This record gives sequence, structure tokens and C-alpha cells, in this order.
Amino acid sequence: MVKSVAVILAGCGVYDGTEIHEASAVMVHLSRAGAEVNFFAPNIEQMHVVNHTSGSATDEKRNVLVESARIARGKIRDLSELRAAEFHGLIIPGGFGAAKNLSSWAVEGKDCTIQKLVENTIKEFHAAKKPVGLCCISPVLAAKIIPGCELTVGYDTECEKWPYAGTAAAVKDLGCKHVNKNVHEAHVDVKNKLVTTSAFMCNAPVHEVYDGIGAMIIEVLKLA
Amino acid sequence: MVKSVAVILAGCGVYDGTEIHEASAVMVHLSRAGAEVNFFAPNIEQMHVVNHTSGSATDEKRNVLVESARIARGKIRDLSELRAAEFHGLIIPGGFGAAKNLSSWAVEGKDCTIQKLVENTIKEFHAAKKPVGLCCISPVLAAKIIPGCELTVGYDTECEKWPYAGTAAAVKDLGCKHVNKNVHEAHVDVKNKLVTTSAFMCNAPVHEVYDGIGAMIIEVLKLA
Repeated sequence: MVKSVAVILAGCGVYDGTEIHEASAVMVHLSRAGAEVNFFAPNIEQMHVVNHTSGSATDEKRNVLVESARIARGKIRDLSELRAAEFHGLIIPGGFGAAKNLSSWAVEGKDCTIQKLVENTIKEFHAAKKPVGLCCISPVLAAKIIPGCELTVGYDTECEKWPYAGTAAAVKDLGCKHVNKNVHEAHVDVKNKLVTTSAFMCNAPVHEVYDGIGAMIIEVLKLA
Repeated sequence: MVKSVAVILAGCGVYDGTEIHEASAVMVHLSRAGAEVNFFAPNIEQMHVVNHTSGSATDEKRNVLVESARIARGKIRDLSELRAAEFHGLIIPGGFGAAKNLSSWAVEGKDCTIQKLVENTIKEFHAAKKPVGLCCISPVLAAKIIPGCELTVGYDTECEKWPYAGTAAAVKDLGCKHVNKNVHEAHVDVKNKLVTTSAFMCNAPVHEVYDGIGAMIIEVLKLA
């Protein structure tokens, strides 16, 4: 049986949307495993648009669904149409879009709110005991929504290799168990069917990020 | 010795820029081979901006360098700064951006012009006997610039799997030798140090496109 996986995108580009190489790795690994990829994104305005050459916000306005379609090569649906009953699992890649458009984590940290459709979708997959795979900063979405879950955002000690290690502390403050994992590894919370990997939370070469996402996809499909 | 490779981008998104998954595959394979990736893009306005959910052009204006920076995660330079002497090889991924922003192929086919900096760069690498790797629609750039070169854009007989086979005929009209190759294969024109693969010219699953680009990168690095 072909496994059908829903993937939620948050725009197109690491600083204001979905991290492109994480999304591409998700797509390649799902494809290689023979799974069907189904893209969704919320039909909302981006928090802001960042010029990726300068890192500065611009005056432009862009729509999360429309920009996400660049990654999806046009095959994408409004997140309001996503029903957990129709899919075997859910994946949400990282990038600042997850912390800006799918939640307010970038601004409010552990006091953030989650975009309503994203929150409902994660809750729906969790309640249906279907696996959810999250990478990079996306695991914070589960930390807010699934009380006491286990996850990784990499390592909890800041260094050159782990510049965002403070995220692990925030996740612990939310009552979750943070598990240190290297970039090529995924952590599986068997009870919650939650699979996480650090991806670009690690200052690692892109092929190691690719391999870590491969490990996540394999575990998600095992649980699906 | 670490091989340093220049990669020219043409925006961000298959319909008006660089095909995202081709660019990502280039980056992952170069990274795995231990090569250094250096992104460049022309600092010019895009031919147009396409809404990737509808396929229609919008009224927006976007800059090729600024949008390409989304794929490059901010680490990108103006194409005017690229000197062949500083790199071991050149890669140009596909997507309509190669036929809209790097050339006018999308509008004028074999009568197209090549963006001046792109033309100069390809000529400079060719004259220095340094390898050039092109995929998807990008091989048409070599067909215009390197008389009589050998290349592949996949197969020359149109079918569901090869919807853009007409491109092979146009390449032959330009006096080049078109070599039929499957999506997981790359063709090497040894004399011209030109390596080509069909990528999304083939209606193939994304992991096969990824593997074909891997074959291209291996051959480019062998010649570098």
C-alpha cells in the first residue's frame, strides 16, 4: 500500500518561510520510499518578507500558500482542506516560517501561539495516533501542543555547532523531555508517534542535514 | 585539495526562477563530495513573477539575485563578481529561470539571446578548460554558446515521460549533438568538458531527478 503523507509548508526561504533544503530533502526521501507527498500551507499573509541577501525585512507582502507553491511546484492545497483521516502521517519542515507564520515562536518564544489550522492539524494526527515528523525549529510546535512529549532540536549546550541550543531549554520549560541528538539522527517519541531531527539547528554541511531528514522520514513511515 | 564550484541561480521557483529541488540536489551532492559551493546570480529584474498556485504572471517585480538568495540561504554574490580563475567548475541548475532570466529561450527558442554575464561566464570556463555542468533546460545555454557541443536534455521523442522532447530538436537545429539519456544518467562531452542531465525535463519522481544530478556532479568533479 502506498503511504500518503501530508507536508505543511510555511513559505519559501529560510528567513521568512520554509527552509528550502529541508523541504526538498523531505520530498526526495518520501519519493524514494515510494510514499505520496501532499503539500498544504495556510492561506494567510506572511509575518513579513525578508530580503535574503541583506537579512532585512522589506515593505512587501506575500502569501504563505502562494510562496509555498514554489517549493511544491504548484501542487499544493489550502491547509483548511487537510483532513488527518486521508493521510498516513504529517511532516512539517523547519525554517523561520514555522516560527513566524505557523506560530509566533520567533517573537514570543515559549509563550507563543500556534496558527489555529496548524494546531488543529497536529492535534488531529496525534489523536488519530498517526505519526508526525518535525525538524529544525518545528518541534517547538509539538512542545506547545502535546504536553510532556519527547523531542530533539539537537543539543542543549550552545557552541559554534549548535548556535540555537537555547531552544532546548525553552522546550524543557514547557515540560517536555529534550533528547540530545546529532544532526544525522532522529529521535522517536514512541508513545506520541512524534519523530524529530535537528536539521539546520545544527551548523552542519547540507548533506548531513539531508541525511538526518532521511532518518526522520524512515521513522515516520515505519510508524505510519 | 577542496574543489570550489560556482553555481549560478536564476531566481527561486520552477516557473520564473531556478528549480528549487535541482538547486538543492546540486548543493547536497557537492557538499557530500567535500566540494565548496559558491552561489552567484545576475543582479537584474526577473522577466516576470509567476504565482505558482495558478501558473499566471502577476504584477509584481522581483530581482533575480535577491530571490536566488532564498535558495543560497543568503550566501550569494552578484554574477558580475564571478571569475573562472577562482573556481574549479561551474554548475547551472534548470527551471524556467534559465530560459527567462539567464536567456530568452522561453520566448525565442533557438533564436534566443543569452544574458551577457552568463554568456561571458560560460565562455570563460570553457576557454579555461574547466568543467560546466548543466541540467534540465540549462543545456540550451551551452548549445547557443559552444558550437557543436554534445549534450542531453533527455529524450528526443515526445511522450508522457518526456513532455519537452521538442527541445532536443531545437538543440540539433543549432548544430549540436543530442544524446538520449535517462533521467538518472549524465552525458559527458569530454572534449568540451560539458556535463548534462535531463532532471525535470523528465516527468520522473523527484528522487530520480536527485540521482541524475548526483551523476552530473560526480562527472563535473572528476573533470575539475
